[in-house]
Amino acid sequence: MGIEEQTPWSREEFEQKLRAKEKYYHINHPFHVLMNTGKLEKKAIQGWVANRFYYQTSIPIKDAAIMANCTDRDTRRLWVQRIIDHDGTQGNDGGIEAWLQLGEAVGLSREELQSEQHVLPGVRFAIDAYVNFARHATWQEAACSSLTELFAPKIHQNRLDNWPKHYTWIEPDGYNYFRKRLGEARRDVEHGLSITLDHFRTREQQEHALGLLQFKLDILWTMLDAMWMAYIENKPPYHCVE
Amino acid sequence: MGIEEQTPWSREEFEQKLRAKEKYYHINHPFHVLMNTGKLEKKAIQGWVANRFYYQTSIPIKDAAIMANCTDRDTRRLWVQRIIDHDGTQGNDGGIEAWLQLGEAVGLSREELQSEQHVLPGVRFAIDAYVNFARHATWQEAACSSLTELFAPKIHQNRLDNWPKHYTWIEPDGYNYFRKRLGEARRDVEHGLSITLDHFRTREQQEHALGLLQFKLDILWTMLDAMWMAYIENKPPYHCVE
Repeated sequence: MGIEEQTPWSREEFEQKLRAKEKYYHINHPFHVLMNTGKLEKKAIQGWVANRFYYQTSIPIKDAAIMANCTDRDTRRLWVQRIIDHDGTQGNDGGIEAWLQLGEAVGLSREELQSEQHVLPGVRFAIDAYVNFARHATWQEAACSSLTELFAPKIHQNRLDNWPKHYTWIEPDGYNYFRKRLGEARRDVEHGLSITLDHFRTREQQEHALGLLQFKLDILWTMLDAMWMAYIENKPPYHCVE
Repeated sequence: MGIEEQTPWSREEFEQKLRAKEKYYHINHPFHVLMNTGKLEKKAIQGWVANRFYYQTSIPIKDAAIMANCTDRDTRRLWVQRIIDHDGTQGNDGGIEAWLQLGEAVGLSREELQSEQHVLPGVRFAIDAYVNFARHATWQEAACSSLTELFAPKIHQNRLDNWPKHYTWIEPDGYNYFRKRLGEARRDVEHGLSITLDHFRTREQQEHALGLLQFKLDILWTMLDAMWMAYIENKPPYHCVE
């Protein structure tokens, strides 16, 4: 029996399969486990903040790429909020600015973050793969891949709970980003989930959707692999330390 | 004084700067050092061969992307040979087939290689970054990035000299790929180097060219980072070992 002839999962089963991908979320990566249990040195925390800044700056570009492939006005009306959340508006500085403040709180100037001088090649390749995917995928596929947001509130809450305890040297006003994302991620998930559950109907499509979510999980995971190599193994590419 | 006003390097100086990038070549990566000194277990050698197969299959696609941006017939006449070298012709099986034979020599069936089941996400993101670069760069920029071939004959010769000594379990007829590339890499370098030295004339362009070569060096290096994480640290992404 070919996969296309299999019975589709019910809406509830399908959602459960998507949620079961949580075990591959980067909250379980060895680097993240060290980070969350207070085991990282300042240099590694700084490295994570600086590398992750490249992700933050890529997110609105990724969301614009999704909108550029989206012919549905009502979806765009909702999706545009993600761009605004990150880029900010007059009087509401947004996620990129909040991340720059996190940088300052861990002792990195905004110029240092913006220069991208600490961004590891492996981190860049992973993030660029995500943006490139968004340029070429359908908007429903891209929406599905964004469902790592399902697992984000927990990771942000963990950081808010544990970092101030373990890393007393970090300025507390650096944590605004994590606080801000708690609510935004929940709202984004609702939208992304309803697109995904509505669009992927046959069993083959549902399996494809699980693969798209795995792809995004791999992006986040691989970023931490590169940071492990650089900051835990102390084996960054040679030209990155000259 | 802006960089655009600086004196260009002479042709000889520029070539010397390109060749000086050798220190960042993946021959110096810790994974490659272990591989070349007989320190890798069979599983790690197999992992390298299977992951690198994704690179081999991407090379002709990358070269076709370069040709798709190249308006110069005489360059295409020469460049097409690279595609033929990898894809082969009637009676001359080419590099992809030679790599499949290397796979068999290390105990991996051609189906296993072709399934891409062992390809790590970090390896895929790095290689896809290279193909994606080739789609969008000018053909002269892409030719310049391919100059890692400058350093390839030595790495192939090292493998031919050391593997049979260290890894007696590998079937010797698996080494045809390395032998074949010794000559081809030398010829490709001559062509890529003359394009690069002719095209990048101002100091700013020459600095840009060095950055392009560094980008390609980072691709090769990052592939080995992912393999280090999976096969030396034994920390592959969880779903890759289920």
